[in-house]
Amino acid sequence: MPTNPLSPGVWGVVATPFTASTMDVDEQSLANLVRHHRSIGVTGLTVLGVFGEAVRLSTAEKRAVLQVVVDAVDLPVVVGASSTSLAPVIEEIELAVEVTGDRLAGAMVQVNTPDPRLLASQLDTAHRATGAGLVVQDYPLVTGVSIGADALAEAVGEVGSVVGIKAEAPPTPPAIAKLAARTRAPVFGGLGGVGLLDELAAGSAGAMTGFSFPEGLVACVDAWRAGGYSAALEAYLRYLPLVNFEAQARIGLAVRKEALRRRGLLAAAAVRAPAPAMPPSLMEQLDRHLAAVDHVEK
Amino acid sequence: MPTNPLSPGVWGVVATPFTASTMDVDEQSLANLVRHHRSIGVTGLTVLGVFGEAVRLSTAEKRAVLQVVVDAVDLPVVVGASSTSLAPVIEEIELAVEVTGDRLAGAMVQVNTPDPRLLASQLDTAHRATGAGLVVQDYPLVTGVSIGADALAEAVGEVGSVVGIKAEAPPTPPAIAKLAARTRAPVFGGLGGVGLLDELAAGSAGAMTGFSFPEGLVACVDAWRAGGYSAALEAYLRYLPLVNFEAQARIGLAVRKEALRRRGLLAAAAVRAPAPAMPPSLMEQLDRHLAAVDHVEK
Amino acid sequence: MPTNPLSPGVWGVVATPFTASTMDVDEQSLANLVRHHRSIGVTGLTVLGVFGEAVRLSTAEKRAVLQVVVDAVDLPVVVGASSTSLAPVIEEIELAVEVTGDRLAGAMVQVNTPDPRLLASQLDTAHRATGAGLVVQDYPLVTGVSIGADALAEAVGEVGSVVGIKAEAPPTPPAIAKLAARTRAPVFGGLGGVGLLDELAAGSAGAMTGFSFPEGLVACVDAWRAGGYSAALEAYLRYLPLVNFEAQARIGLAVRKEALRRRGLLAAAAVRAPAPAMPPSLMEQLDRHLAAVDHVEK
Amino acid sequence: MPTNPLSPGVWGVVATPFTASTMDVDEQSLANLVRHHRSIGVTGLTVLGVFGEAVRLSTAEKRAVLQVVVDAVDLPVVVGASSTSLAPVIEEIELAVEVTGDRLAGAMVQVNTPDPRLLASQLDTAHRATGAGLVVQDYPLVTGVSIGADALAEAVGEVGSVVGIKAEAPPTPPAIAKLAARTRAPVFGGLGGVGLLDELAAGSAGAMTGFSFPEGLVACVDAWRAGGYSAALEAYLRYLPLVNFEAQARIGLAVRKEALRRRGLLAAAAVRAPAPAMPPSLMEQLDRHLAAVDHVEK
Repeated sequence: MPTNPLSPGVWGVVATPFTASTMDVDEQSLANLVRHHRSIGVTGLTVLGVFGEAVRLSTAEKRAVLQVVVDAVDLPVVVGASSTSLAPVIEEIELAVEVTGDRLAGAMVQVNTPDPRLLASQLDTAHRATGAGLVVQDYPLVTGVSIGADALAEAVGEVGSVVGIKAEAPPTPPAIAKLAARTRAPVFGGLGGVGLLDELAAGSAGAMTGFSFPEGLVACVDAWRAGGYSAALEAYLRYLPLVNFEAQARIGLAVRKEALRRRGLLAAAAVRAPAPAMPPSLMEQLDRHLAAVDHVEK
Repeated sequence: MPTNPLSPGVWGVVATPFTASTMDVDEQSLANLVRHHRSIGVTGLTVLGVFGEAVRLSTAEKRAVLQVVVDAVDLPVVVGASSTSLAPVIEEIELAVEVTGDRLAGAMVQVNTPDPRLLASQLDTAHRATGAGLVVQDYPLVTGVSIGADALAEAVGEVGSVVGIKAEAPPTPPAIAKLAARTRAPVFGGLGGVGLLDELAAGSAGAMTGFSFPEGLVACVDAWRAGGYSAALEAYLRYLPLVNFEAQARIGLAVRKEALRRRGLLAAAAVRAPAPAMPPSLMEQLDRHLAAVDHVEK
Repeated sequence: MPTNPLSPGVWGVVATPFTASTMDVDEQSLANLVRHHRSIGVTGLTVLGVFGEAVRLSTAEKRAVLQVVVDAVDLPVVVGASSTSLAPVIEEIELAVEVTGDRLAGAMVQVNTPDPRLLASQLDTAHRATGAGLVVQDYPLVTGVSIGADALAEAVGEVGSVVGIKAEAPPTPPAIAKLAARTRAPVFGGLGGVGLLDELAAGSAGAMTGFSFPEGLVACVDAWRAGGYSAALEAYLRYLPLVNFEAQARIGLAVRKEALRRRGLLAAAAVRAPAPAMPPSLMEQLDRHLAAVDHVEK
Repeated sequence: MPTNPLSPGVWGVVATPFTASTMDVDEQSLANLVRHHRSIGVTGLTVLGVFGEAVRLSTAEKRAVLQVVVDAVDLPVVVGASSTSLAPVIEEIELAVEVTGDRLAGAMVQVNTPDPRLLASQLDTAHRATGAGLVVQDYPLVTGVSIGADALAEAVGEVGSVVGIKAEAPPTPPAIAKLAARTRAPVFGGLGGVGLLDELAAGSAGAMTGFSFPEGLVACVDAWRAGGYSAALEAYLRYLPLVNFEAQARIGLAVRKEALRRRGLLAAAAVRAPAPAMPPSLMEQLDRHLAAVDHVEK
């Protein structure tokens, strides 16, 4: 299995839609959603990530999600592993390899230790066991583990099979600057795109994040490559209020799913427990933001 | 499937032994370990808990652990679910039901929300989907979720299928006093037995925890029932320095496995990453503690 | 002492400038900074807050800061108390009363307990002891205490002397919606203005936060009152990339001070330990953001 | 001012008693308490520490506490600084120097950064500004800062004025082993004495902690010096259940003050908000523990 570095650009983090009635995975909406991503020119997809609610899916559901995605579009996919320990991570990667085959651009694993040698050793084992290229996600808010950019660069530098880094330990721009200077792996920003302009300036290869208008992420990254800061700023500016609105702590996923629903990309905005639902008090403001962005789109 | 309340007493939390060379599950040591628990008169076993390193096991390994345990001894077992969301929890419980059958005294699930209604609803769904009785574990250090004893009692009170509570939100004695007064489910202390005397005094039904000398837990709980505080104190006192030594943050599991190894109950003390190994600087003190306890045993 | 609710608008959170050589309080820069705030039409100033590095000042320095501010401008001031317990908080408020006299619009105190009755009782005592109106700051990232909007509303509802609430427990918009509906005290957003549009929509009375271009905060709040969402969006949009850039975790204060230095409002960007300095890798991007905003200003 | 290393032994952490009616500092009880410590042979006292509720005292109250202590007994004192930044820490140390004079064995300051150079630089400045020897307290639960034993040893090694280390970052025994091997400063355990046996074995110079029967700490440390592990174990064993009972999270201080009250050493067990009071459900068990220890004492 080749382990090429991820191509630069936007790797859309795909939400997992659920039906409102039974809370089952809504495969039709999922297919719609990834086809939309395909249609707007994302580089690839990131499936079963944190905002794909992977930790809330059974194995059968994870398998189904992967199958729907690879059947619906021909994009390369990064597949997230929810576990933070090696044995179950390998099990998850094996599932991804089995279902997505040569469409698997990388398996995304969490930093689970601040010790760079131990991290490198685990990454190496995971790769040897599965053949998959690895995307290393540094997301302390979710894992509780803080490694620091220097140690992360050290770990990644020892492992040839790392095909990308997802840098989500704030403040991300200085971390990305270090990682981009010290590793060959492309570094992607996440966190909903709140710092996308600054992450690109710091040397990121693009965005690997969820947003109800991935069009905005694509426009920003494309503009950055073509025209630098000023062009990217102009391309992204009108999306930024909605980006910040969707990046709210805890409720962000519910807000994003509701936005996707209003766009017609999902049939329902349901999130699984214990994720909180979108507070009704924010509905009107979401309408305003969507109207403002729609106006840009047209 | 009957969902009787757990019997009072000691439910030994079983470590998962690994071979030193390959780090695979060491089934022989596991069988030894649970047979030892059987021989000293524990009420039941708790398998695949936090200190059983369940989050570091693949599904196949979890299945093997359960099979070894039910084959080796005839004790009732509580089986831990590692996930914190409903769909994968149900998947884990189904595995437990399949392998342990009528030996399954309860499936242990984590409190994953501070909202008592939401918790009750999820517990109810998990029971309906699997038929299993549920042991609710309140362990905020591991989950990051704090519910409080009042809300936990409220949630548990609404769900008839709860067969036990594992109270591990410090300070545990006042929480246990509330839970014991307000719910019918038996409440067990954990946390390595550091507060066992106080938890019994608060109304706990016993201990559900790991310790390298589970003999001490059994002696304490038996003495409490027979003679109250003074008897329990005398029975437990000589174990307490080792209890505290094993309860050390982060390294506690490695210390306990090393103690079990020196007792001849495990072939190796290996823990899986990212759990830290036992610091060599503590080896001599472990010897002292073990010698002091051995002297009691004889 | 009257305890009128704070007037709506922008209460600029004032940084405490230090000299680069001796790290002493730079009184001249401080006077410049507050005069600039006065010149752009802020409603009032917030002094000795978290981003005023109040916890890093001696009592003599706090006194000096307050004196410089009241001498330099005639604005009403909210004065922060750094302590989280009643006795030292009262001592800090007494200092504020002594130096700022009838210019004291409110003393800002932290939520230090999740218990609404206990919070109310402490607020009441603080007011009775000092006569000062109180601004209640809910900032769990700094205090480690999470109260929730319902309990906060309950506490504030019992205390007539509360003149304002600073809501900084994310997600802030739904919290502000609850607080605005359930209390008479005006509620202000903070957190660097990242959610200002959404906080205004939720019913906030304005912004109480720091930003290197407080002009942007004033423009946004004024536009909101005059023309609602669309007007506020247009007024704020060009500032938002810089707002996000300054809101970065840990380094945000250093970034903001550097921005203020480049604007000529501070002589030096120095922050006191253990606050980290601005990473050099971000300097170029700060220049870009400032140039983009400067262009708006002209 | 000489900066001699702290003498080994027990430095009793002194609670600050409050009157039940007015919640003022109860100077009479404080004098009783420190005279009791004197009578049982502690090496010195630690005043205005975390469990002395220093953060809940006004400057005038801190001064009064120090004055009462130095007037009541002739012991050397370590005085805690509550602040975590240099300028206010220096202000607090100056107060300690002024009131306690040559009785000041050391000013205790918190680790406020994980960066050893920055820590060393701040320690050095604090010493130069005040002349005081410094006791460095590593207590991440309170400060939120984790430095690690290696970096702490590095920092302390660069600063000649450090007269002691209070190691309270669990697990403390391996940390103390490192610190004792790598620094000249004596290292003391704290945390209520839960790990005292293991800390002594790791090379600690004694205990710097609070306990309602400091007699037990003294007996243990003296026995360790005279007869090693076995002697210390015998001396300490009967106190250990009460030690664990008092070490309970959050409520520990209230439990300890109630125990001191029942011993007749304090007139009231009151703690200042937001510290929680002792849960009534634990009163009976406290009686049992005290009776068991009293029996030992006689």
